[in-house]
Amino acid sequence: MQKIHTKSGKCYVAETLKVIGSKWTMMILHNLFEGRNRFGQLQRELKTISPKTLSQRLDELEKTGILRKKIFSEVPLHVEYYLTAKGLSLKKVFLDLESWGRAH
Amino acid sequence: MQKIHTKSGKCYVAETLKVIGSKWTMMILHNLFEGRNRFGQLQRELKTISPKTLSQRLDELEKTGILRKKIFSEVPLHVEYYLTAKGLSLKKVFLDLESWGRAH
Repeated sequence: MQKIHTKSGKCYVAETLKVIGSKWTMMILHNLFEGRNRFGQLQRELKTISPKTLSQRLDELEKTGILRKKIFSEVPLHVEYYLTAKGLSLKKVFLDLESWGRAH
Repeated sequence: MQKIHTKSGKCYVAETLKVIGSKWTMMILHNLFEGRNRFGQLQRELKTISPKTLSQRLDELEKTGILRKKIFSEVPLHVEYYLTAKGLSLKKVFLDLESWGRAH
């Protein structure tokens, strides 16, 4: 693979992995792509994640503009998480992971 | 994204992430794709990785058939790491990460 860098001399792949490249972050994104939008759903699906880690990862993804929170003013109040356009543009990565998984 | 499962009911994306989905593993693969094949090169590039973690991740990738070791019987003896066909077939994932990084 050709080594490609940002203007500041940083590597694009390394920069991307800094944003999404932890196991939990990738798994959270995968679940959002599958339509699991609520904290409890994500927690159930990810099983061994602690609520604290899940909150932190969701906050990080919100700060980097990959997801946005939607707060419903119901009783009890609830929050859902949605991928932004920036987040949705990661879909190809997950489709590739899926087809690699299928092949091997 | 359609939820797609293996025959045993496991999710392909989750299974793939079990194999390659840690930050260090993704970064090691990225460096192998860029032609850094020696332990010392990988260690220098990954900076904050401990030699123990680097060894463990390389061993895991060898066990899952993603890379193979090539041992050169020189003095001093040296080892290089190469992606197998299975490993090379992950290239699309890294190209996607690169183009996402470029776009955002």
